[in-house]
Amino acid sequence: MTASAPRRRARVGLVQLSVATNRRADNLARADALLAEAADDGCELVVLPEAFATALNLPRSHEVAEPVPGPVTDWLAARAARYGVWLAAGVLERADGRVHSSAVLLDDTGRIRDVYRRTVVYDLEAHFLTGEVGARAVDTPFGRVGLLVGYDVQFPEVLRTLFADGAEIIVCPSILLRPFAEPVRQMVLARAAENCAYVLFAAATGENTLAGLTYMGRTAVVRSPMAIGAYSRDFRKQAPVLAEADREECVVAAELDLHELRRMRDAAPFLADFRRCGLSTALARATSAPHPSVADAAPPPHAPAVGESR
Amino acid sequence: MTASAPRRRARVGLVQLSVATNRRADNLARADALLAEAADDGCELVVLPEAFATALNLPRSHEVAEPVPGPVTDWLAARAARYGVWLAAGVLERADGRVHSSAVLLDDTGRIRDVYRRTVVYDLEAHFLTGEVGARAVDTPFGRVGLLVGYDVQFPEVLRTLFADGAEIIVCPSILLRPFAEPVRQMVLARAAENCAYVLFAAATGENTLAGLTYMGRTAVVRSPMAIGAYSRDFRKQAPVLAEADREECVVAAELDLHELRRMRDAAPFLADFRRCGLSTALARATSAPHPSVADAAPPPHAPAVGESR
Repeated sequence: MTASAPRRRARVGLVQLSVATNRRADNLARADALLAEAADDGCELVVLPEAFATALNLPRSHEVAEPVPGPVTDWLAARAARYGVWLAAGVLERADGRVHSSAVLLDDTGRIRDVYRRTVVYDLEAHFLTGEVGARAVDTPFGRVGLLVGYDVQFPEVLRTLFADGAEIIVCPSILLRPFAEPVRQMVLARAAENCAYVLFAAATGENTLAGLTYMGRTAVVRSPMAIGAYSRDFRKQAPVLAEADREECVVAAELDLHELRRMRDAAPFLADFRRCGLSTALARATSAPHPSVADAAPPPHAPAVGESR
Repeated sequence: MTASAPRRRARVGLVQLSVATNRRADNLARADALLAEAADDGCELVVLPEAFATALNLPRSHEVAEPVPGPVTDWLAARAARYGVWLAAGVLERADGRVHSSAVLLDDTGRIRDVYRRTVVYDLEAHFLTGEVGARAVDTPFGRVGLLVGYDVQFPEVLRTLFADGAEIIVCPSILLRPFAEPVRQMVLARAAENCAYVLFAAATGENTLAGLTYMGRTAVVRSPMAIGAYSRDFRKQAPVLAEADREECVVAAELDLHELRRMRDAAPFLADFRRCGLSTALARATSAPHPSVADAAPPPHAPAVGESR
């Protein structure tokens, strides 16, 4: 990776994985096969669901959670390096006696570039998981990437902190239940539109045996439905869903046109309009909480800082 | 109106009006006919589009704007009392040398119960219109109603202040251009889902002769796509769009089931989840700016306070 202008296009692959509780080795084996398929397909960034190795497994969450870095991120790092892809994935993280549903981002050498802990914790989860405010965007060769986790997508404010931080690609590993499928799908579409960003929604499928419910699937790569701002006289409609799955275990791949996204953002005044409005400033202040430090998130001295790649 | 429990059901009518620039009398005449139609149909709350009498008419906005109360709200008050309906409508408001795209809410006696000024101002509008932070919900016989105006619907934070204030019915008069139709429609659907509320999106249709573009239409009454919270085991999907129009001038009427909405809110944990998350508190502090006072918004001494009707 050299310091250069961000790429104009990027191919991404979202792994829709059947995430079985108490079957870690089996989950990893199937994830590995789908990762290889995505890499073969030319994907440069591959995304796995929330807690893809362990599920949330609430009654045993403290037991099955792992430190970051730890065994699961080592597993991911080996695959990122082997396939030469960036990887994002959900990891049930244990830290300081707490459990977080986290997302990690690794570069194509296997180095951890970002860790994010889910902000919003669902009702009954609150006995087992801890939320943390602190979403942010980081630079990658394809543009600024912001991590989210599952349930966060239902809360527009969480994404707005990514937007304020310049995120162009919002990556959301999820493990949500099927009853939420319709509202979540509507919100995924709206998040792309209101934040003028790609949303990579990588969902778990299969059965939650503890709850006796199925996961929602509906993995999708989504963009804003308008290409260029209305006042530029160069606007046109574009289909918001680039690629999607229903419930099958599979890779959902799509090509992101980041050049087009940047043109749209330059032309669309509503990003500036939001910044001008008093709510924006107030929210930015409200969400400036320090982010959990990641020991190895800083690039080594011999490598260019990721930020230099833009 | 007596102090009593809020109604279980309410019939609402949204007037999709062709709003012509520099043709105030003609706009009012057509609005009146559609208002009468909505009242005949049994609607208890009728909504007219943003700036329904004048359009935004940016080059002449200072000239065509009116004080509130003023001629347009007097016109509305007469109809509210004549038809015995609550009315919400968009009014181009002049106040202290500034022009706001405002929404007003009048009760069935013609009294102004709330005035809201659009928070977010669109790029080129900023030379002509002033935005103001201060959305809030007010009590009515059918439940808590929160006013928005058009472009605000693209900014989830604006609605979130209504949600935090308990709004069950979000009323959004709009006059948006057709290129925005798809993203706006997606966002209208998401707003209902994420805020667990009805959204009454009353849109202008017809031609914006100054811009050489058409207004979007797509007036719609929308609700959350999930009836009851997932953990209650009583969830089921429901169609999010109760009624909608394409581009024709018409009344879009629907029956709101407020009893069902309140059951859903009691059962759905995500409202409490959001309140528990740090962003909620921070945002509430950020948006506690004082609301513009409305001289006659307070009920007279002999009438019960609106808040008592719940």
